[in-house]
Amino acid sequence: MTFKERQTQYIEAFDQSLAEWREHQIGDIPERLLSAMCYSLFAGGKRVRPVLLLATVDMLEGDLDEAMEFAMALEMIHTYSLIHDDLPAMDDDDLRRGRPTNHKQFDEATAILAGDALLSEAAAIMLRACRKSENKMAAIQAMEEIMEGAGARGMIAGQMEDLMASEKAGNEKLLERIQSLKTACLLTAPLVSGGILAGAPLGSLVSLREYGQCLGVCFQMVDDILDVVGSAEEMGKNPASDAKKDKLTYPAFIGLDETRKRVEQWTNWGVEALQGFGDRGWFLRDMILTLAARTK
Amino acid sequence: MTFKERQTQYIEAFDQSLAEWREHQIGDIPERLLSAMCYSLFAGGKRVRPVLLLATVDMLEGDLDEAMEFAMALEMIHTYSLIHDDLPAMDDDDLRRGRPTNHKQFDEATAILAGDALLSEAAAIMLRACRKSENKMAAIQAMEEIMEGAGARGMIAGQMEDLMASEKAGNEKLLERIQSLKTACLLTAPLVSGGILAGAPLGSLVSLREYGQCLGVCFQMVDDILDVVGSAEEMGKNPASDAKKDKLTYPAFIGLDETRKRVEQWTNWGVEALQGFGDRGWFLRDMILTLAARTK
Repeated sequence: MTFKERQTQYIEAFDQSLAEWREHQIGDIPERLLSAMCYSLFAGGKRVRPVLLLATVDMLEGDLDEAMEFAMALEMIHTYSLIHDDLPAMDDDDLRRGRPTNHKQFDEATAILAGDALLSEAAAIMLRACRKSENKMAAIQAMEEIMEGAGARGMIAGQMEDLMASEKAGNEKLLERIQSLKTACLLTAPLVSGGILAGAPLGSLVSLREYGQCLGVCFQMVDDILDVVGSAEEMGKNPASDAKKDKLTYPAFIGLDETRKRVEQWTNWGVEALQGFGDRGWFLRDMILTLAARTK
Repeated sequence: MTFKERQTQYIEAFDQSLAEWREHQIGDIPERLLSAMCYSLFAGGKRVRPVLLLATVDMLEGDLDEAMEFAMALEMIHTYSLIHDDLPAMDDDDLRRGRPTNHKQFDEATAILAGDALLSEAAAIMLRACRKSENKMAAIQAMEEIMEGAGARGMIAGQMEDLMASEKAGNEKLLERIQSLKTACLLTAPLVSGGILAGAPLGSLVSLREYGQCLGVCFQMVDDILDVVGSAEEMGKNPASDAKKDKLTYPAFIGLDETRKRVEQWTNWGVEALQGFGDRGWFLRDMILTLAARTK
């Protein structure tokens, strides 16, 4: 099976579970709130985090049904962070994945609540999974990994520091720190929590975290590159929108060519981190190679 | 010991735990984010929810140290909901408890992130408690009770419906539903989760939930009454600010006198719900009596 085929399998299974979740909420969650939550949840996201979690649990022969609950929660957390990030008081973006952002489609108040609701629902789904789990300690630790990565010492810390930073005041070290918190935390979380759920030994968890950090840096660098060279049509958002706002980006500090070189370097480190998994690591290896090569 | 003395004991122990939490975060949470979180956390709140949880666990002779973690989480969730509620896109309030609201003291972006961070940190604290707990099932269920009460089928649902409602379109039934979701969910949560943590039988949990619902209705009705008759000085916020915005309130539907009568009725029902706990229920009984009689 090719990488593309396996990826499609994961995404289809994930989208089906998410559609089932939505069905169950009709009548329980107020219609407008559920609409706003689902508008962004089903907005054509690449499902990177769910795929990472499912692939990790699959690689380690864990329980894929249990993993699916955590995968849904992860995507909800990612989606909430995008909705709040796009708000006028934050990045003030009108377009996301080629469609109006949540507060443009609904209104600001609804977008704030939809974000809050997605974060709360992520916790609720994982707690249900914890309650049902035969290994409660592993389920709790997996959930902790995800909530820590998304929280005040993780993703939100990155967003706060990103808001405070400007190109002039910043330096490459600060940029690395921000990206590590803002992006890498929520990319290592599916890998490490997947490992925990599947009962992987500590050494494997360390390797998965290392791989996730490489993936996070690549992810951000490629995003920055595409933000400079991409077109609005290809990206589904206004290109150079980050540069316009004096955001820190890698190309701004070290140039496009050097950024491309670094992507190659981090990709290699990511592949190396998977060595201990042997052939079973093929999907995660192809994942970082594909990600590094993406053009949109 | 008088009600007031016992209440002060709970509040002092709670504030000390919260101050210790803050100490531990210095250096881990970005300074501005932690400042914004703590600005609202330490803004002179009445600590109603933590006191309810501690009192319930105390009454049922459960573990007060474990309860304290859940009490902190509850207050963080309550605080996050106030910060987001005060935002310009929501209720647009400049004053809360006599001080500038979070987005006035900091800025909108910081207030949004501080709210997100408090909700995430609440989950992180409870998960740590779950991991340490000897009865993981009870800890998970207590956390579930709290997250469900705060989530898309609880408090956030109430806020969404509240935003959509106006005095003209509304009726008393809708008002009751909104208040039940918006306020009562987060007042039953400390009682029921406290009961679960202390290992109370199902019958006691039902009684605690019933009492919490009565408390929630009283709480909201008294708030509505004070909003009409209170002064800005006494309330620490602009009086009649809800009425100005065409919000649904009890006095607007049934008048001040009838609202006062209802407060008495719901107080009696609340006291009745505690009967099964005998003398041990004295603190919770005094709690609803005090709350019904409050003038600010």
